[in-house]
Amino acid sequence: MRRVIVLGIDPGSRRCGYGVVERAGSRLTVVESGVLLPGERPMAERLAALLDGLGTVIERVGAEAVAVESVFAGASIRSALALGQARGVVLAAAARAGLPVFEYAPAQVKVALTGNGRAQKDQMVRMAKALLGVEARLSDEADAIALAVCHLAHMARPAVPARRSGAGGGR
Amino acid sequence: MRRVIVLGIDPGSRRCGYGVVERAGSRLTVVESGVLLPGERPMAERLAALLDGLGTVIERVGAEAVAVESVFAGASIRSALALGQARGVVLAAAARAGLPVFEYAPAQVKVALTGNGRAQKDQMVRMAKALLGVEARLSDEADAIALAVCHLAHMARPAVPARRSGAGGGR
Repeated sequence: MRRVIVLGIDPGSRRCGYGVVERAGSRLTVVESGVLLPGERPMAERLAALLDGLGTVIERVGAEAVAVESVFAGASIRSALALGQARGVVLAAAARAGLPVFEYAPAQVKVALTGNGRAQKDQMVRMAKALLGVEARLSDEADAIALAVCHLAHMARPAVPARRSGAGGGR
Repeated sequence: MRRVIVLGIDPGSRRCGYGVVERAGSRLTVVESGVLLPGERPMAERLAALLDGLGTVIERVGAEAVAVESVFAGASIRSALALGQARGVVLAAAARAGLPVFEYAPAQVKVALTGNGRAQKDQMVRMAKALLGVEARLSDEADAIALAVCHLAHMARPAVPARRSGAGGGR
């Protein structure tokens, strides 16, 4: 029985949630999840810590793909820039390790975990617990786990690699 | 006579300009400048190539500080996110190498190079040539050289590290 391991990541330079989900047959298991906390340091140092921390996680868990969120609705330009910085480091860490990155819209992720595209944060955490038997302590972690589950749910269908996404453009 | 070498970087995932400027006494010299071109690949791979490329430049030139622009006026949320991604990789590459990152507003950079806070792109390129005897072929390169010159100009005064900047915040 083929096992597939996917790493979901919810980028942030202060808190970066990650969730490692394995599928064996129809069974999903959360192998590991957590939040990387680069601490109160200058932004550049936090990003470097994030890069190294993710590199360590990627090496340890043996994932074959990374899943991230595609859209940042309602963000201000300042928050888009800050989130973009953390996201850039996440993408670079994945590509460095040779892992493809897949992007999913928030509604796709919510549907994959709860069946409801408008699910609230607490529903996501509860469903992560109910479906996967894991206590995601925090919403960053639940989001990351949900992203991994979402990618596993989409693997049977043709997936859209990150190159096609809106965030793939720019200068 | 103490020599100081500063690396200015103009981040971008398709084109990332850099300029290495050395000050020895009152003399400024452009040691090296160029544009990193990660090519037409998925965004994550471009960012990984940028990370590695910058790491190589940083190692080669022996800079003691990195200078980047602080503000992205007029950017849309989408372009802020895309630019943020490249910028995050630039900051992480600098911090990884143990280099402090300093941020300067566009007007500060223009003043440092041309004496005029509203200088146009072509003036920047001309002044880079006139002041430094270097032919910056492209505005990304001239911008990066100007950032390095700006930091050297500010080094006599107390400088503001990147941790204080607007882009230093966020989640």
